[in-house]
Amino acid sequence: MISENKLDAAVRELFDGIAFTAEPAGLYDPLRYMISIGGKRIRPRLCLLAYSLFRDTIGEDVAEPARALEVFHSFTLMHDDIMDRSPLRRGKPTVWKKWNPDTAILSGDVMLIDAYRRIARCGNAAVISLFTETAAQVCEGQQLDMEFESHDDVSMEEYEQMIGLKTAVLLACSARIGAMLSGASEPVCEALYNYGYELGMAFQIADDYLDAFGDEAVFGKPIGGDIINCKSSWLNVRASELAADKPGFRRALSAPATTEEEKGAKITFVKNIYTELGVDKEATGAIEAYSARAMDAVAGIGLSSVRIEALNRFVANLTGRVK
Amino acid sequence: MISENKLDAAVRELFDGIAFTAEPAGLYDPLRYMISIGGKRIRPRLCLLAYSLFRDTIGEDVAEPARALEVFHSFTLMHDDIMDRSPLRRGKPTVWKKWNPDTAILSGDVMLIDAYRRIARCGNAAVISLFTETAAQVCEGQQLDMEFESHDDVSMEEYEQMIGLKTAVLLACSARIGAMLSGASEPVCEALYNYGYELGMAFQIADDYLDAFGDEAVFGKPIGGDIINCKSSWLNVRASELAADKPGFRRALSAPATTEEEKGAKITFVKNIYTELGVDKEATGAIEAYSARAMDAVAGIGLSSVRIEALNRFVANLTGRVK
Repeated sequence: MISENKLDAAVRELFDGIAFTAEPAGLYDPLRYMISIGGKRIRPRLCLLAYSLFRDTIGEDVAEPARALEVFHSFTLMHDDIMDRSPLRRGKPTVWKKWNPDTAILSGDVMLIDAYRRIARCGNAAVISLFTETAAQVCEGQQLDMEFESHDDVSMEEYEQMIGLKTAVLLACSARIGAMLSGASEPVCEALYNYGYELGMAFQIADDYLDAFGDEAVFGKPIGGDIINCKSSWLNVRASELAADKPGFRRALSAPATTEEEKGAKITFVKNIYTELGVDKEATGAIEAYSARAMDAVAGIGLSSVRIEALNRFVANLTGRVK
Repeated sequence: MISENKLDAAVRELFDGIAFTAEPAGLYDPLRYMISIGGKRIRPRLCLLAYSLFRDTIGEDVAEPARALEVFHSFTLMHDDIMDRSPLRRGKPTVWKKWNPDTAILSGDVMLIDAYRRIARCGNAAVISLFTETAAQVCEGQQLDMEFESHDDVSMEEYEQMIGLKTAVLLACSARIGAMLSGASEPVCEALYNYGYELGMAFQIADDYLDAFGDEAVFGKPIGGDIINCKSSWLNVRASELAADKPGFRRALSAPATTEEEKGAKITFVKNIYTELGVDKEATGAIEAYSARAMDAVAGIGLSSVRIEALNRFVANLTGRVK
């Protein structure tokens, strides 16, 4: 097994080696930009963590697939930002804003191809196949997310299916690929897939919760973005289910807010409904439940307590800011 | 070897089996639409032709990669049509026009992933790697094409590099994959790559020529599209090199034309310059030269005359309408 400090260093090193200096520069510069503004490298870290449970050193066999997971994730962000008209990503201009939508489309395409280049280098057909099925599911999740914008009656079942596809399957895939490349047995690989999936659900609900109730400095983006942009989230889907005056709640949620004053008022108003209905507490309960299910998934596969503890810390790190 | 009639039937059958009925329908419907309006299936046909030179039956080992080449090509069209603001493709509304640009982005993404699913099924790492390098080159070609729109001094060398990337490498890749999967030797595979590349150059220049001098009923789209839309083409790049009054020619080429009368006048005016400068004859000469180079590429690898004849007929079919 590999220590957490060594894992941190290995994740950092992964991206020191990504240059994207091919020509034409106008095509590849946005790839370098996306990776350079990139955040916590959750997916490659999870891949290396799963691998490290069964190995003592990180080899090139897992380094390129781990990079592929981050490159793929960045590709989805580049295209999602066009579709969502998002001007900022991690406080920086999005690619379609900094360059233009055409560049964001084409550079995103070549970024997806670059992800395939890296994943294919492992030469493991089952890994490539899992990556493909996951990539298609992520697109399906984004499609549902877009379709939900014009529905005002998204059920919690539909919402959780959507975030499962858009977010959780890629974490599941990341953990499973790490385990597969370490040579772990099929049941262990499957357990790590399930761990990643439940973790991904907890992570997305935590993200939705922090968007309304987080600390802006810690969360890293303005609070209330989902409320202002009328995006569906775990909180408003659940509130919509619980509200006595459903049409009234949905009207409040879809009301436009342009000035800073209107935005502030809308955020306060909607958050008050959340706390009155208790959906904030329900959300933290759901995060805990999914976190527990993640740990249940890896409970019966004979991992030592130090390994279970490492997996538990990863869950806590991804969801911990909620508490 | 397989007869041309059997090859025709095999190409048709390839796409009878493509349904794209996965969910959500809003994501997959545009894929089915693109394949249904699809034209001559040049890339899968070339792949099967190369394969058929060395085999007597078409197996599933080559069918899925052959489909992948068409699916990939359709993905590039779906995204290119957004970037080029093209309202029509083969006389039908483009995906971004029929649905919307967001749908065209996301359905294009999942179409690229579908192409990878199919190419990966062959389980041949060298084939997957060639596909990836080619896919990246096609994006590089599209990037150059977009960059050239704001340059008014594209040289013939730059233009031919661009069409080499945007068009010729995919035909080269198609021929090479067919040969690789048939079990042909490395020099034979390389010769078929070069055949496909030169053929691709001839094909693109023929397309540029027919855009100005073709018969609308045979060409399948309105004549003069490149002239009206100020797209760079072999003809206008060469004319710009030859024109005594370069600024005057470039002004004429970039002059807006909105009414049918203005469009007709612009097309006639620019075509007159082409014939005065003799670039129409130069273009047919270039098509013949590239066609000859395609046949030269496969001259020294010991193919029987019936096989050489089949390759020659393919070149003639792709460029023959010029004569």
